[in-house]
Amino acid sequence: MVKAGIIGATGYAGQELVRLLLQHPQAEIVWYGSRSYIDKKYYEVFRNMFELVDAACLDDNMEALADRADVIFTATPQGLCASLVSEEVLSKTKIIDLSADFRIKDVATYEKWYGISHASPQFIEEAVYGLCEINRERVRSARLLANPGCYPTCSILSVYPLVKEGVIDPDTIIIDAKSGTSGAGRSAKTANLFCEVNENIKAYGVASHRHTPEIEEQLGYAAGRPLCLSFTPHLVPMNRGILVTAYASLKKDIGPEEIRSIYERYYGDEKFVRVLEDGVCPETRWVEGSNYVDVNFRLDERTKRVVMMGAMDNLVKGAAGQAVQNMNLMFGLAESMGLELVPSFP
Amino acid sequence: MVKAGIIGATGYAGQELVRLLLQHPQAEIVWYGSRSYIDKKYYEVFRNMFELVDAACLDDNMEALADRADVIFTATPQGLCASLVSEEVLSKTKIIDLSADFRIKDVATYEKWYGISHASPQFIEEAVYGLCEINRERVRSARLLANPGCYPTCSILSVYPLVKEGVIDPDTIIIDAKSGTSGAGRSAKTANLFCEVNENIKAYGVASHRHTPEIEEQLGYAAGRPLCLSFTPHLVPMNRGILVTAYASLKKDIGPEEIRSIYERYYGDEKFVRVLEDGVCPETRWVEGSNYVDVNFRLDERTKRVVMMGAMDNLVKGAAGQAVQNMNLMFGLAESMGLELVPSFP
Amino acid sequence: MVKAGIIGATGYAGQELVRLLLQHPQAEIVWYGSRSYIDKKYYEVFRNMFELVDAACLDDNMEALADRADVIFTATPQGLCASLVSEEVLSKTKIIDLSADFRIKDVATYEKWYGISHASPQFIEEAVYGLCEINRERVRSARLLANPGCYPTCSILSVYPLVKEGVIDPDTIIIDAKSGTSGAGRSAKTANLFCEVNENIKAYGVASHRHTPEIEEQLGYAAGRPLCLSFTPHLVPMNRGILVTAYASLKKDIGPEEIRSIYERYYGDEKFVRVLEDGVCPETRWVEGSNYVDVNFRLDERTKRVVMMGAMDNLVKGAAGQAVQNMNLMFGLAESMGLELVPSFP
Amino acid sequence: MVKAGIIGATGYAGQELVRLLLQHPQAEIVWYGSRSYIDKKYYEVFRNMFELVDAACLDDNMEALADRADVIFTATPQGLCASLVSEEVLSKTKIIDLSADFRIKDVATYEKWYGISHASPQFIEEAVYGLCEINRERVRSARLLANPGCYPTCSILSVYPLVKEGVIDPDTIIIDAKSGTSGAGRSAKTANLFCEVNENIKAYGVASHRHTPEIEEQLGYAAGRPLCLSFTPHLVPMNRGILVTAYASLKKDIGPEEIRSIYERYYGDEKFVRVLEDGVCPETRWVEGSNYVDVNFRLDERTKRVVMMGAMDNLVKGAAGQAVQNMNLMFGLAESMGLELVPSFP
Repeated sequence: MVKAGIIGATGYAGQELVRLLLQHPQAEIVWYGSRSYIDKKYYEVFRNMFELVDAACLDDNMEALADRADVIFTATPQGLCASLVSEEVLSKTKIIDLSADFRIKDVATYEKWYGISHASPQFIEEAVYGLCEINRERVRSARLLANPGCYPTCSILSVYPLVKEGVIDPDTIIIDAKSGTSGAGRSAKTANLFCEVNENIKAYGVASHRHTPEIEEQLGYAAGRPLCLSFTPHLVPMNRGILVTAYASLKKDIGPEEIRSIYERYYGDEKFVRVLEDGVCPETRWVEGSNYVDVNFRLDERTKRVVMMGAMDNLVKGAAGQAVQNMNLMFGLAESMGLELVPSFP
Repeated sequence: MVKAGIIGATGYAGQELVRLLLQHPQAEIVWYGSRSYIDKKYYEVFRNMFELVDAACLDDNMEALADRADVIFTATPQGLCASLVSEEVLSKTKIIDLSADFRIKDVATYEKWYGISHASPQFIEEAVYGLCEINRERVRSARLLANPGCYPTCSILSVYPLVKEGVIDPDTIIIDAKSGTSGAGRSAKTANLFCEVNENIKAYGVASHRHTPEIEEQLGYAAGRPLCLSFTPHLVPMNRGILVTAYASLKKDIGPEEIRSIYERYYGDEKFVRVLEDGVCPETRWVEGSNYVDVNFRLDERTKRVVMMGAMDNLVKGAAGQAVQNMNLMFGLAESMGLELVPSFP
Repeated sequence: MVKAGIIGATGYAGQELVRLLLQHPQAEIVWYGSRSYIDKKYYEVFRNMFELVDAACLDDNMEALADRADVIFTATPQGLCASLVSEEVLSKTKIIDLSADFRIKDVATYEKWYGISHASPQFIEEAVYGLCEINRERVRSARLLANPGCYPTCSILSVYPLVKEGVIDPDTIIIDAKSGTSGAGRSAKTANLFCEVNENIKAYGVASHRHTPEIEEQLGYAAGRPLCLSFTPHLVPMNRGILVTAYASLKKDIGPEEIRSIYERYYGDEKFVRVLEDGVCPETRWVEGSNYVDVNFRLDERTKRVVMMGAMDNLVKGAAGQAVQNMNLMFGLAESMGLELVPSFP
Repeated sequence: MVKAGIIGATGYAGQELVRLLLQHPQAEIVWYGSRSYIDKKYYEVFRNMFELVDAACLDDNMEALADRADVIFTATPQGLCASLVSEEVLSKTKIIDLSADFRIKDVATYEKWYGISHASPQFIEEAVYGLCEINRERVRSARLLANPGCYPTCSILSVYPLVKEGVIDPDTIIIDAKSGTSGAGRSAKTANLFCEVNENIKAYGVASHRHTPEIEEQLGYAAGRPLCLSFTPHLVPMNRGILVTAYASLKKDIGPEEIRSIYERYYGDEKFVRVLEDGVCPETRWVEGSNYVDVNFRLDERTKRVVMMGAMDNLVKGAAGQAVQNMNLMFGLAESMGLELVPSFP
């Protein structure tokens, strides 16, 4: 039984982690951390948990937690995990950080895009970027795991095979992404009120969103050289789901069957990546509540571009589900344990 | 392993049943029946099932199915189950009917409210009304089970204890119910288009909805005499969920603590009925995707009325989940098997 | 040209008032009051107003405003208008108060339900309750107008004729109301975030909502004696709209035609109340953006109850539109001036 | 008074046209054409029109209509207008066609993308593409006006100035568009049911949507040569609104101020195109119900691309509003007559 502590259990990602771990046959939650709700019953914050969780919220004491937990999940704003982690903590427990603190190898890049200084750069090198489908082996032995961002997970998995295989020109990649509103978090802001989000769509963080360098770094590894891309997120009036529509110019003459065979080669054995049938576009409704990423592509003969698409649940594969998938690998459990979730529709 | 066949697998309730049975450790689906989609792969109708279900849709042949299945679920329009059931079928298999055909004991009442003649009234008496929390023992031995309607499930469970205990005057019961749109079914009607339902709320079937006599019959058993109540359903722009707000006048002088103790006596041991804490109103978001019904009440000293409230997921406890709960009882399995679903939020 | 000042211009009702007054041929806005956004351009708060309003927000100085404006609208939290009004202000200008401060004649009732003490009870008697369809003549000469609450407007207009005509028993009235989320205001609260409201319905303020005594008072005038009723509001995942479903027992033997003739007698000449055709239920989508209230009823022979229904846009007839309607009457303009708005669908 | 007939009055665009024309001071609707609802009262189809429109629906007889109307609006599926138009009709009345029949000059391109043969190609040359901001002078004298498509209107207006000024490379244009569901029409299809659209986003018509050649043709005129671009529409769970996010590579070294001055030069005097302030992204909520298109851009120094954005109401500027704007020009009325609509929020 893996004893898990959660710091930041009262955000949307933290709560989804609770939902998944409660249904996980080999995990047990020992710490519901939430600075905002200390001593409050967890079910008073999330009434879906009534009669399921009796524990009260605790503070963010990572040292105390390290003594009790086999793994600590940090589902907290940027900077917190980096400020709490230490060699002592890592000697006692594993950390799966759902924030961005350890995702980017170049500390200057991190500090520039996030606008904060990194409190423990000495752990960056050790940290493993936990996109299981690409880094599976390194994940298994990680002490400090950087759980990928929601947009990066969907973007990278949609585009990765064609970059890696040299099918598309890395300098032409444009990623237009759309996210449900749970991605904006649970803090009380006017911009996230129902009446402000409902019946609306907008782009935000145009040419400046923090997930850009994370996507660039990972796709750069695939390309074998640094690359620079356009990334535009949009806010959609729905609770969950991310859809990525990515564009790139072909580098060589290639037909749709060949591209399809590449996707199938990369993902045919991947349980959580479904390569859809020809002509079927990914839709967020078909993955909701599950750990799947649905991907597909369309070759446009007229423009010599390929349109790559991916859909996933931002709170599952884009956050808590992927974190559990990483936990499973790190503790030698079956990778899909607790994640055999049939997508819930409608 | 219980072999289950589904007739009507491509409606919303049928699809939810597939979702639940796929995750049930002791059930296996052997027949995906759908007259509209015969020979079409099931995942082509519901793309969430891609890579999870490989079967194609079959027709509505209950006799053929009786040879293959231990239990047949009929998630079909009114009249179909009654037209297909026979002694021969029932001698081979059990039937859980999600339609209204066997819910109402008085065939004249059925025929009047549903506007069709009943094709097999000889089975009505045998049929067991499958509201487990009230009829548990009789469910265990049923061959033909009438799975309760969505509105009746939520309405009855919210009101039942206070009728049964004689706290409220049965002639004053008014039930104002609100349902998500999946309750309206998946057939292509202008009235159910996104733009017609979104940003709208309306009452429908006022003083004439077919679930009225079903609620009246069951509450009549509790009252020990026939009763007549007002029931008004409303359509709400959300996918899932039913909320019931019910009103009745007190028959005796009673305080809120005593009423609370009645609810706790009836439901304290019921896994799937959660009596909320004082002052907490049921909300559909807290039960979504689960088999829970959350109930609570508020005593209004000014009007000498009690307001009884209940919230549940219309596709789970209001349809497929309750059907699985009944299946579990009918096959001697743990009642909550496959139904330990943590509500999904947001 | 009526010079209008708005105190509380940056709430949803205040902004709707701006939208209506900008399109009003005989009104001009001279003051955009908003304590929270002083000196900020109004269009920076509401970007729909870009290139339409150039003014910046001003503070809540009612005395300064009284010198500039012919009428002051206060679309502010309870208590503010009462704290600012004075004989000097009223000698210079008229006030249309969209808050509850002057709606309730009995100051003790106000203070009990609102939990604050009334800062200027000396003006309560003078204040006119601005439900034009009922109080039209008194509105014309009002200096201080109490604009009705959103729920009361829809509730009273739905029920009023049958109370006034003695058709229903006033002691049996139950009002189950449903509102879009703009009714909850624009302040940043977790409970009003998109992900909390979307895909959810809940009751709130059960047996304790502040609009209860306002409805009771007005219907009491119709009944000729005090009455006490049940009122339950619900929050619906949509931006605008209120739907009222009201229940009452018949006091005498009466048929649907006779009831219909009563509604037509009361509302046949009312431009903004539409009595729908037999069998047509009011729906909020059909009144959105307009000043209409659609009403209808259903007689239930079984229960000897009548179900009365009303639908309106909470921000128009329920707030800003009714305020403009009152302004028109108070300034001798055509009652519907600036309010000839065709409902916007979808 | 312009007498207007509408063929296709019971679709969403047709109904919006009714809403606008009812509020237009110089127009009168003389024909509500709808093959599906002949002899049915118009308000029975759209209950918002109750007490506002008393007329019944008529058939699609363009010849009869030509005798009665000064202008005929065809808000019908592709092919119908082309099959009804004739020299005789055009000699008597003007036609504003909201379908695609006369938008594309090259009949082969039309027939290829739309998959139907053009019934009256002889009128294509004469037809004027009614994007007023670009073709204003030619619109004034048109007999047959091709009202632009919804996506093309928003796409072209967002991108046009930078193509025309040679700032961006026309071969790099990628348009990622998002539309509310009213754009999918009012016919009863499973894919457009509430539960299918709600809580979902998807791309559709990838590399094959029919609006692509229309955008290419118009931007080709601006570029001075044919061009080929990527266009991907998406379906968003909201009623109204289109958002365009367009990408292109810079052709020359240029700063944001210079780009801004280009937009302001093109649109500074345009009432219905609002160039937003620096850093403000267009959002559909701020234009809902109005004829505005809000545009802005962001220069990305890293990628040397410019991101161009536009938001509008698909039923107003994208259909009925633009049609009225064209009507105004064609009849010598003030261009904005009947279109001075303040966007409605929330």
